[in-house]
Amino acid sequence: MYFSKSDIDSLEKLKRLNLINSIAGIRPANLIGTANDAGQSNLAIFSSVMHLGSAPALMGFILRPEGEVPRNTYENIKHNGCFSINHVHQNFAANAHATSAKYPKDISEFDQCGFTEQWISNFKAPYVKESLLKIGLSYVDSIPIKINGTSLIIGQVEHLYIVDDIINTDGYIDIASIESIGVTGLNNYYGLTKLSTHPYARP
Amino acid sequence: MYFSKSDIDSLEKLKRLNLINSIAGIRPANLIGTANDAGQSNLAIFSSVMHLGSAPALMGFILRPEGEVPRNTYENIKHNGCFSINHVHQNFAANAHATSAKYPKDISEFDQCGFTEQWISNFKAPYVKESLLKIGLSYVDSIPIKINGTSLIIGQVEHLYIVDDIINTDGYIDIASIESIGVTGLNNYYGLTKLSTHPYARP
Repeated sequence: MYFSKSDIDSLEKLKRLNLINSIAGIRPANLIGTANDAGQSNLAIFSSVMHLGSAPALMGFILRPEGEVPRNTYENIKHNGCFSINHVHQNFAANAHATSAKYPKDISEFDQCGFTEQWISNFKAPYVKESLLKIGLSYVDSIPIKINGTSLIIGQVEHLYIVDDIINTDGYIDIASIESIGVTGLNNYYGLTKLSTHPYARP
Repeated sequence: MYFSKSDIDSLEKLKRLNLINSIAGIRPANLIGTANDAGQSNLAIFSSVMHLGSAPALMGFILRPEGEVPRNTYENIKHNGCFSINHVHQNFAANAHATSAKYPKDISEFDQCGFTEQWISNFKAPYVKESLLKIGLSYVDSIPIKINGTSLIIGQVEHLYIVDDIINTDGYIDIASIESIGVTGLNNYYGLTKLSTHPYARP
């Protein structure tokens, strides 16, 4: 089956969104937690969280264009300089998906979607208590992607909390063992099964 | 288990790479195909391919810093303005991983790793014949990520080839049905199992 650029542009909007959101392959499901000055929390699911580097440890995510969606997450990050990234597991996939609804700014998705805020030390963003792998990041930069008005938001890993006994001697975490999930399209969730580990490749 | 920023910075390099490459969650495994002016092909596995937008259909990937790795893929993209993204399936995961070895510039990973170049119409980058979902993109932009010297390479979808009968009436592709795979850490591959599709979320 073949689609040219103009075939894609002519598709009905929802069909195009589903198709183009599926073709990159599997993406991670993560909840991003933030808060404003008054401690009002916000929680939103993102499928665009990415690894950017290990030294220093940097992660990023893609923010949709201003005006297209409410940007409570971004406003909070800009304002108090931090955010949390929390893995989504199979047992709360439906709750995590529910955070994508457009709640008013003064309503916390933690309460509405059945999650527990976890505040650790003086970090100014809440973690998701139910998540077994959570990361506290400081805001580093926002890089505009001019061609479509999106931005790449970058954070540095300051704190990393992982449930005990899932890191092997090489530092590697089997995320299938904690039932972390993936997503494709707008709303399709996938479980993971470990297939293989391949040695460092040499010619 | 807790790691502070300084705990992470103090880890032995390979352990840090494995740990930090695992925490974002599952990432897609894709092969990027390019060629130089003389038609010499190059093929490399990437775990950073991302969706950037649907109208126009844009995708990106993260390129490691200049000097750290040979950048045949990027040089070819800059030179002839196009590249292909090809899904990795379970049946050729080991071959795909093998493309990460540092082959000399005049050696094609297609030949070395058991893939077949597929040239379609006048598109100046080869596709992977064995892949069931392949995308031809034109180069749009390279955005520097100054904090660590990486770059976000952006392409626009010009051509999309998908094996028949896997797109549903909503435009959504079940990538588990073609056994597309994910990756975490440096070299850990995962199969996918569809869990659920959730309706558009409303408050």
